[in-house]
Amino acid sequence: MDFLSLLRRKQARGRLRADEIAWLVDSYVKGEIPDYQMAAWLMAVYLRGLDKSETVALTRAIISSGLVLDLNDIPGPKIDKHSTGGVGDKVSLVLAPLAAACGVVVPMISGRSLGHTGGTLDKLESIPGFRTNLTVAEFRAALEKNGVALAGQTDELCPADRKLYALRDVTGTVDSIPLIAASIISKKLAEGIDGLVLDVKTGRGAFMPARRQARKLARLMIEIGSALGCRVRALLTSMSQPLGRSVGNALEVREAIATLRGDGPEDLLEVTLALGSEMLLLAGLAQKPQQARRLLLRALHQGRALEKFRAVIATQGGDPAVVDNPDLLPSARYQQSVYATGSGYVKSIDALEVGLLGLEIGLGRKKLDDVIDPGAGFIFLKKVGEPVKKGETVAVVHASSLQLAEKIGAALAQCFTYSDRKVEPEELVLERLGDVEERRKVRKAARLRQRYSASSASGFKVQNRQPA
Amino acid sequence: MDFLSLLRRKQARGRLRADEIAWLVDSYVKGEIPDYQMAAWLMAVYLRGLDKSETVALTRAIISSGLVLDLNDIPGPKIDKHSTGGVGDKVSLVLAPLAAACGVVVPMISGRSLGHTGGTLDKLESIPGFRTNLTVAEFRAALEKNGVALAGQTDELCPADRKLYALRDVTGTVDSIPLIAASIISKKLAEGIDGLVLDVKTGRGAFMPARRQARKLARLMIEIGSALGCRVRALLTSMSQPLGRSVGNALEVREAIATLRGDGPEDLLEVTLALGSEMLLLAGLAQKPQQARRLLLRALHQGRALEKFRAVIATQGGDPAVVDNPDLLPSARYQQSVYATGSGYVKSIDALEVGLLGLEIGLGRKKLDDVIDPGAGFIFLKKVGEPVKKGETVAVVHASSLQLAEKIGAALAQCFTYSDRKVEPEELVLERLGDVEERRKVRKAARLRQRYSASSASGFKVQNRQPA
Repeated sequence: MDFLSLLRRKQARGRLRADEIAWLVDSYVKGEIPDYQMAAWLMAVYLRGLDKSETVALTRAIISSGLVLDLNDIPGPKIDKHSTGGVGDKVSLVLAPLAAACGVVVPMISGRSLGHTGGTLDKLESIPGFRTNLTVAEFRAALEKNGVALAGQTDELCPADRKLYALRDVTGTVDSIPLIAASIISKKLAEGIDGLVLDVKTGRGAFMPARRQARKLARLMIEIGSALGCRVRALLTSMSQPLGRSVGNALEVREAIATLRGDGPEDLLEVTLALGSEMLLLAGLAQKPQQARRLLLRALHQGRALEKFRAVIATQGGDPAVVDNPDLLPSARYQQSVYATGSGYVKSIDALEVGLLGLEIGLGRKKLDDVIDPGAGFIFLKKVGEPVKKGETVAVVHASSLQLAEKIGAALAQCFTYSDRKVEPEELVLERLGDVEERRKVRKAARLRQRYSASSASGFKVQNRQPA
Repeated sequence: MDFLSLLRRKQARGRLRADEIAWLVDSYVKGEIPDYQMAAWLMAVYLRGLDKSETVALTRAIISSGLVLDLNDIPGPKIDKHSTGGVGDKVSLVLAPLAAACGVVVPMISGRSLGHTGGTLDKLESIPGFRTNLTVAEFRAALEKNGVALAGQTDELCPADRKLYALRDVTGTVDSIPLIAASIISKKLAEGIDGLVLDVKTGRGAFMPARRQARKLARLMIEIGSALGCRVRALLTSMSQPLGRSVGNALEVREAIATLRGDGPEDLLEVTLALGSEMLLLAGLAQKPQQARRLLLRALHQGRALEKFRAVIATQGGDPAVVDNPDLLPSARYQQSVYATGSGYVKSIDALEVGLLGLEIGLGRKKLDDVIDPGAGFIFLKKVGEPVKKGETVAVVHASSLQLAEKIGAALAQCFTYSDRKVEPEELVLERLGDVEERRKVRKAARLRQRYSASSASGFKVQNRQPA
């Protein structure tokens, strides 16, 4: 095969065959196609797109570049959840042990903070001793023991994705829907799962702020999953204000523990239950959403989810005592209150700006060698729709220096807007996109209904018609 | 300045400022922007385009990357000719000494064979001893002595173009009209010329086969030249069949010498005179095309053009005796006749296929380390429109081995088509595009004519109108 002819076809809006895409990815991983040629190809794809079959082929090629976990010898349905990333999104910390407590096997491979969004690995690593860099053998052992393991990507899984992502990052080709979809689905499918629930964030704090783009991404991921033998469902959820009341690594672990104790913020619980229901339904552990919800709430109230989280921490080298005593988690030395600049109701909290301030305060990395501050972050005392008086404390900044706390505090005050009139927060779960099988059934039922109503309608007309 | 933000603007069809393009080119030449990032930018440009002002800025930035010859101390108008490349296109070999014999100073920096097209340097180097790799000082000295110098690009001129071209070559971004225009015009303007005549080839054997694309390229080059203070005119000429009767390095030098003796093929002379007239007019050495043509023909018939060529060869280290005895040029050991497969008239000779066969037989390089065969090539005994009988010899292949001669001969036979009915060859000079000043004058004259005819027309109507 010849690189330039494949490139020229893509430039001319042509379609590449699966074997051609497999050759491209394989040759790139082997170093036979240099970075500068792949950069040109990625830009051509960014501007010309990939169709569904090309995206499926790319996903398959990325999966084939490495190991695929074979979890067949672990009994039970293997279902994972993936979020496209948000601010204050600690759902995984609650949901993974909760779903496992209900009988789902959850092999969850997560990422680090990216841009203005937090990362599950960074949050978990704020737990003293917690290890996320498990080997494949350790990951499998943890999964067998607890029914859930939370780890980072290993070198064995999808090496092509890491190499491609690093190149996309420096060539302006990150925010391409087919490239994002192939990257996410390849990594998830390499986990050897049977089903996947996607939390596709939309709104100002999401990577895909526009709902239409988020829906397009979700649909594409559902279809790629189906083509590669994995049932994928998606919820589009709101990321216009931060999720829960805490943003920060240790602060979010605290909030996750509180939620597992039944004492967490309502919005976090709501999103967790919605995604958890989908996991239980996909796993076949519940037949109806209401039943799934009941099972999840029972596991929470009986403390089984919290015990599962304790077991995960213990197995992965962390100090399980944090579950009972969250004060063992790292904390920031300085706290700075942020005061309301208006009265009435909180109208909005800009999630994107909050995320960017989080980056300033040490929640993520701007450069590879930046050090994360596990104790830093924000607590939101007021969220959208809540009444407030001017001068009242709406948030608290936790930071490693007074100067930083004051500077970021002043900026955080500007993330809030206020309204005289009562404000309703945006719906949390905006849309549900069923997997391909489900949608087929729904379409079939709709066709049947239509046919029935059409025939009854025509029957009615015949009755009224005069004989010829 | 930030590379990624400039890249994103181009991806989103935005426009880059001149200082931004200058920074991009400068940083790339310095190695501060790596190849993989420049490759992404080139692909974005390839697919999103550059507008006129961006292309002017790119041209200026490429020129600024190196030396610009200052030829002010050499008296006389400095005018060059550039062809976009063709098959059998040895015009430069005839035109450069011819224009110089008429008083034009011709600082001609040429290229090597590219793809299916021949290169002036490769042709000249078939003359024993001829040196094209002149230093800037040697080039200037040759120009002062003879009023014409024929050389290859030096490292001092437009280094950015060489680096960009090498990257474009491997990233599918060669055939972009703004990138081609910037590359050609930058190299020509770095020669320190006052005016430039472009021979933009169109038809099957050209890099821009479609006339519309060729015209677009020509217009853009004219406008860039004007923006950078150089008058540029262009002829669109036909490249559907090879030009002249010979294709090959030494074979084309032979034909050029014959033409300089007044004994060359008609089509080659015709294109040479058309381009030469434009050079003399631009130089101010003639006021009307007919006068320019007379001056050129006189220099040919008086042998002054041939003597100029002899002087060029002598000055640049070649054996000037080839002018009197072309048998001193290298020749191929084997010759293979190619016979007509039909009767009537030659309908077409596929210039692209002839060029590709030329590449097979050693006229150019497919890889950098390929060796050129100076003696190889083709002689066309029959050209489009000429009568022919089946079995008659239509061409002769000159090759270094019998096997190659036979193989290529069989393929060359397939490049001819025949017709029972008389065929007229395509016009050679298809269009003339004047420089910007000229076109302004023409437009002004047209506006005046229109105004005059409009007023007389309305006058006519008034005469016929009844008084109110």
